[in-house]
Amino acid sequence: MALIRSVFQDELDGVSQTLVDLSNMVSASIKKSTHALIDSDLSAAEEVISEDEKIDLVQHDLDAHIIDIIARQQPVASDLRALVTALRMSADLERMGDLSHHVAKLTRFRHPEPVVPAELKDLVHHMGTVAENLSRKVATVIETRDTVMALQVEKDDDEMDGLHRQLLGNITNASWTHGVESAIDITLLGRYYERFADHAVSVSRRVYFLVTGTFAG
Amino acid sequence: MALIRSVFQDELDGVSQTLVDLSNMVSASIKKSTHALIDSDLSAAEEVISEDEKIDLVQHDLDAHIIDIIARQQPVASDLRALVTALRMSADLERMGDLSHHVAKLTRFRHPEPVVPAELKDLVHHMGTVAENLSRKVATVIETRDTVMALQVEKDDDEMDGLHRQLLGNITNASWTHGVESAIDITLLGRYYERFADHAVSVSRRVYFLVTGTFAG
Repeated sequence: MALIRSVFQDELDGVSQTLVDLSNMVSASIKKSTHALIDSDLSAAEEVISEDEKIDLVQHDLDAHIIDIIARQQPVASDLRALVTALRMSADLERMGDLSHHVAKLTRFRHPEPVVPAELKDLVHHMGTVAENLSRKVATVIETRDTVMALQVEKDDDEMDGLHRQLLGNITNASWTHGVESAIDITLLGRYYERFADHAVSVSRRVYFLVTGTFAG
Repeated sequence: MALIRSVFQDELDGVSQTLVDLSNMVSASIKKSTHALIDSDLSAAEEVISEDEKIDLVQHDLDAHIIDIIARQQPVASDLRALVTALRMSADLERMGDLSHHVAKLTRFRHPEPVVPAELKDLVHHMGTVAENLSRKVATVIETRDTVMALQVEKDDDEMDGLHRQLLGNITNASWTHGVESAIDITLLGRYYERFADHAVSVSRRVYFLVTGTFAG
């Protein structure tokens, strides 16, 4: 029995490690898509687009593996909850990859024109940096189950919300000279980064709940 | 054994029925939020906002129930897959409820000003009708496992994509006179309806895959 339990624990650790890998892939993706966006780097945008398939594949294999573990091991209720939570986290991480992919596709669509007007580049780059840090922290939260860092993720998301409001404020300002099409692009970009952060918070809250049995935030 | 199997089958049917109920709730929600949006009806918007909590609660209870079934019944692989798929469908439906809630919140935020300029009301109303029909079809697809209707959901989503493109075309047209703030509202609205339809397709594809073992579309 002790042996079986130990094999099972190894399997749970393997699931957790793949979630960490996924978070790191998503983090690298949003870093690269933000660079592609800000510097109008078409080849970086293309890389993000093709690497998103890799993220989808890892997520798909992970989900199949988790379901296989549940079917074979018939885990007790608490382990089952951890495995179901892992399925939900993998869905969040996959969606974060999609949103990074959206940033890259918008960059490619407008290329060689830049998506972001010069005076908003610092702000959008800041949003990208917050997004990247969020996904790096999420990797650590999954790996270490550090509830203090899980709460920091909530704070970073507040920062993202503030930057997002600032971005929308810039577009609706009377001095906006870049026209409606650019305003639409910036609106969608803002939404992509904001949703990316929301999913990071979602992953972090799931870990927090697993560890403490109570809801964060 | 036959008896246990039958109790289990009743439980699966119960899960399926709750997913149908959720789809119908979401369908009623998007119908009401579209009405609130088009007719600037504040009390309808408030109803959608408070009824979304009900949707969240039903989804939360359903998920807990599904996990409880898995823990108690230790289902065979095919039944386990169906139950995990039910968890994913409930997440899609909950998100559709959120998107309807976003439409209602935007309506409330701008009230008594209308969100949608008069000349776009027919188009946005059409998007709302397609969204409502999609969620009604999803209820039927879950209930009957009708794969022909599951494929129709894909076609309806194509219609939504066409309406969405038309909507964005209107905003970027040189004759747009409603300013940037209104363009942002319409961009976000378009995204809400489009994502609503994407999640409907996602639910429908999950049913299709459960029934046929192959991917639709």
